[in-house]
Amino acid sequence: MNRRRFLKQGSVGGVAAAAGAALAAPAIAQEAPVIHWRMTSSFPKSLDTIYGGGEEIARRLQETSDGRFTIQVFAAGEIVPPLDAINSAIDGTVECAHSVGYYNWGKDPAFAPGADLPFLLSARAKAAYNYYGGGIELYNEFLDQYGLVSFPGGNSGAQMGGWFRREINTPADLRGLKLRISGLAGMVFERLGVVPQQIPAGDIYASLEKGTIDAAEWIGPYDDRKLGFQKVAPYYYYPGFWEGGPTVGLFINKAKWESLPDQYKALLRNCTQATDMAMAAKYDYLNPPALKEVIANGAQLRSFSEEILAAAYDAAIQIYAELSESNPWFKRQWDAVQPYREDWYLYAQTAEYTFDTFMMIQQRKGKLAPTAG
Amino acid sequence: MNRRRFLKQGSVGGVAAAAGAALAAPAIAQEAPVIHWRMTSSFPKSLDTIYGGGEEIARRLQETSDGRFTIQVFAAGEIVPPLDAINSAIDGTVECAHSVGYYNWGKDPAFAPGADLPFLLSARAKAAYNYYGGGIELYNEFLDQYGLVSFPGGNSGAQMGGWFRREINTPADLRGLKLRISGLAGMVFERLGVVPQQIPAGDIYASLEKGTIDAAEWIGPYDDRKLGFQKVAPYYYYPGFWEGGPTVGLFINKAKWESLPDQYKALLRNCTQATDMAMAAKYDYLNPPALKEVIANGAQLRSFSEEILAAAYDAAIQIYAELSESNPWFKRQWDAVQPYREDWYLYAQTAEYTFDTFMMIQQRKGKLAPTAG
Repeated sequence: MNRRRFLKQGSVGGVAAAAGAALAAPAIAQEAPVIHWRMTSSFPKSLDTIYGGGEEIARRLQETSDGRFTIQVFAAGEIVPPLDAINSAIDGTVECAHSVGYYNWGKDPAFAPGADLPFLLSARAKAAYNYYGGGIELYNEFLDQYGLVSFPGGNSGAQMGGWFRREINTPADLRGLKLRISGLAGMVFERLGVVPQQIPAGDIYASLEKGTIDAAEWIGPYDDRKLGFQKVAPYYYYPGFWEGGPTVGLFINKAKWESLPDQYKALLRNCTQATDMAMAAKYDYLNPPALKEVIANGAQLRSFSEEILAAAYDAAIQIYAELSESNPWFKRQWDAVQPYREDWYLYAQTAEYTFDTFMMIQQRKGKLAPTAG
Repeated sequence: MNRRRFLKQGSVGGVAAAAGAALAAPAIAQEAPVIHWRMTSSFPKSLDTIYGGGEEIARRLQETSDGRFTIQVFAAGEIVPPLDAINSAIDGTVECAHSVGYYNWGKDPAFAPGADLPFLLSARAKAAYNYYGGGIELYNEFLDQYGLVSFPGGNSGAQMGGWFRREINTPADLRGLKLRISGLAGMVFERLGVVPQQIPAGDIYASLEKGTIDAAEWIGPYDDRKLGFQKVAPYYYYPGFWEGGPTVGLFINKAKWESLPDQYKALLRNCTQATDMAMAAKYDYLNPPALKEVIANGAQLRSFSEEILAAAYDAAIQIYAELSESNPWFKRQWDAVQPYREDWYLYAQTAEYTFDTFMMIQQRKGKLAPTAG
């Protein structure tokens, strides 16, 4: 039988027609292979919002790839300990990790700016800098030496400053204070006389209760409320100036990333970006009622004084200068973000801040109370 | 020739192997059909950020579907006039429109809340309410009667209040003022004695120059700077309290939406959500330097006084009460958003507002000026 005639005439009916129409199929199959990855999260399942971000990336990917590109998500500790998540993507134990860059701060301080620095940017300004100011590209230039590619995949918004057993009014009140905090934020507090403490999350409550520590930072009302800290350290301070808008990142083994077809790269980037905004929106939806709940349960809201914030700010800037001398990649990232930071905090004083301030005044006057409509 | 044997034996070599491997192809082809849609935008190409949001949705869709689901984007006026965009998705002239719900306010006031209302929410809080507070679902319940499905696909952030030929200090200064503004915002201003003017965008400059109008609202620094308004109306007021965080929506003909395979629905939703956050981020990146530019070119920044904002707030709440009496779908949406609005503007007073305020104080002190690093 002449093969060309067979195909042309469709002499075997429907199947031949299908075969003819399907000659392109092997190419399609190559373009849309079935791929299964593993993601290790730095977070326990109990932190449903932040751990849930990793699951959300996977769910979006499953749906948009019609189940051809899937990622199984493992909670902290299931494959590697929480602080080893990024390293397990570096060494290829997993294809990707959902984590926060500053967890690798001890390995290289230049991991921190892609996540957050004390007194950096709010979540909105962070997104602007990441997606349009070259933040993502510069962070990936740095990560290249570690065989990683990373995209923002979540944000908590500005975090709270933590739970304190007693009131803190001036920088002098910080001296000798045992505060559960780590990383760059710990360095900043250390310069103000605080004694940073490294304590696993599960031990915070007991340590506060016994007075082994005087204070502990955690996240924000939605996550904090589950732990009942107000019973043992009722003063709930804000803002967590070291986490004004921390980026949770998807850290991908670079060789694995480069093995993906372009379509799958686009899928993973879109799903990760949608999750980046979705996590912030979810926190912004869940935190407000949670704040009312912790207050109803005894939390006493306190703002860090401007004097304390100013002392911490000066210490942070000094630390960035020192790190910039010793670490070129830290310097490049810190230098790159500063012009936008200055411009944003000028611009934001106009429409955004005035709109919000007016609405907050209405809230305090009781004028946002739902009307009968 | 026995068809089964032919297929089984692969008697025509490579092609038969391809045909055999490809027997599943027709099903794959059904799952991933080639679909081409048209989108009409309410915006001209000159508004590259907001018009660009429609193109961005299309580009993301092209990349993530590997070119199988494409949308051709038309600027305002190419298919239908800008304010008819949503209606052209209703009547099926196009499959979808990228527009702002309140453009259909005259047809039905209940189109407005899904876009924005005076004194509603900032862009961040809007996203929280849309994605987690049921905002998207409720808006779609309302849109069902018009045969539409809609998802948020962009946000400008808080807009500026517009360009004024003279200073406005008290509500009395608003009486008789001819302000280019429309929709619900026009109604609010009308109750304060303003005479709202409907003027096409291209005529604003000449009308301000001749004094035919006293003021005009537009968008924000990035878009406004191209039009040179500061030369004819130098007082640049903020905030645009009627657009604290307006949602630009993708409005889809419901029958066309329902004809999509689940995978394509997921693709379109993900691409639209990623664009929703990306447009806000893009504005947040471009507006700050643009503000400096318009100021350098002669704009005089002015904040609406609290007295004016309070008068406008009371007028808005009164209007919402009246609309709620006459329009059940307006009432349902207004009732639904109020509890979150109150909770958000309490919560936001803590970490977010204090972090931002402190950073703005540093900006004013010159302490955000880039350091040598």
